[in-house]
Amino acid sequence: MLSLAIFGSGSGTNCQAIIDAIAEGMLEAEVKCVLSDVADALILERARRHGIPAIHIDCAPFKTKLDGAAEQRVLQTLEEHGVNFIALAGFMRIIKDGLLNAYAGRMINIHPSLLPSFPGLDGGKQALDYGVKFTGCTVHFVDAGVDTGAIINQKCVAIDEDDTLDSLMTKIHAQEHIAYPEALQWIATGRIQLNGRRITLK
Amino acid sequence: MLSLAIFGSGSGTNCQAIIDAIAEGMLEAEVKCVLSDVADALILERARRHGIPAIHIDCAPFKTKLDGAAEQRVLQTLEEHGVNFIALAGFMRIIKDGLLNAYAGRMINIHPSLLPSFPGLDGGKQALDYGVKFTGCTVHFVDAGVDTGAIINQKCVAIDEDDTLDSLMTKIHAQEHIAYPEALQWIATGRIQLNGRRITLK
Repeated sequence: MLSLAIFGSGSGTNCQAIIDAIAEGMLEAEVKCVLSDVADALILERARRHGIPAIHIDCAPFKTKLDGAAEQRVLQTLEEHGVNFIALAGFMRIIKDGLLNAYAGRMINIHPSLLPSFPGLDGGKQALDYGVKFTGCTVHFVDAGVDTGAIINQKCVAIDEDDTLDSLMTKIHAQEHIAYPEALQWIATGRIQLNGRRITLK
Repeated sequence: MLSLAIFGSGSGTNCQAIIDAIAEGMLEAEVKCVLSDVADALILERARRHGIPAIHIDCAPFKTKLDGAAEQRVLQTLEEHGVNFIALAGFMRIIKDGLLNAYAGRMINIHPSLLPSFPGLDGGKQALDYGVKFTGCTVHFVDAGVDTGAIINQKCVAIDEDDTLDSLMTKIHAQEHIAYPEALQWIATGRIQLNGRRITLK
């Protein structure tokens, strides 16, 4: 059984997809708490609606990372809520060593591109600007690099002639909401095996 | 009408796909000559079987590029055969400025990955080793970078759990043989339009 914490900074649609997959019996997990660095992020409101502890972490003085005293408060919060696995879902801060080491191999992220293409910010816009014909989403383990960890799940999305950034992101998000619960269920049921950095399912 | 030269160093299956597409009326083009830096490459034998001039270009003293006197001989050969467009198909040498400038916007290449992932050598092996779930092939304009030009056509290939490098390359090649004639026909019929570096079809 996965005892999850979900971290996000925005609207939390992937968090919602995970909550829904659990409710529908598609994912053997429990969301123990939802954390955000943004006090009024919709992801926290979504958690509250489902009776899930919704916790704002003030990350000052840092603007782009989760470090120092804030990292310590996160670690304490995770322990208090009995969390054994972290799902990053639109969390816009860099994870540093303290949290990485405490949850080594137990933290995953979702990214809006077919990694290793278009890591970092604005994966959808990068793909459109580059002119690729296919992009997608990637669920991967978190390591110290930017979107460089071993890949658990990907979905492919065609970019059509008339796609705008909005229409493309709608298609990518729809695939994310399938890919993320699917990947978590593979982990929950012990199916993941690593060969080099290639992941296959038992 | 495209008057093509096809450049290759190996077995020439993409060259064959182009010849076949023309024979089947799917591609409005004529292959004026086939050039190889490898004297006994099967691509030259394929050309001969179809009555197409098959020309070996000795690129010595250079080992990895087409430059100097050899580049001059290539330019002269292309002119003699009335070539107005170049299709690289497994040509294992770097194209330098002389040929690039003479055929600016009139030279394309096919690469066995979903660029910008896995440029350079061994695109299929790179994808397997990285652990991606999807890869494919890319037809792109040639510029001075390594596989960095504007993308004309891509096809997506799923990597299955039991894929080996051989089985994966078989799937990628099958898609290449569709993607390359398709891209050439878009060019032959004047359908390509560039917005930034994003290509759409008229």
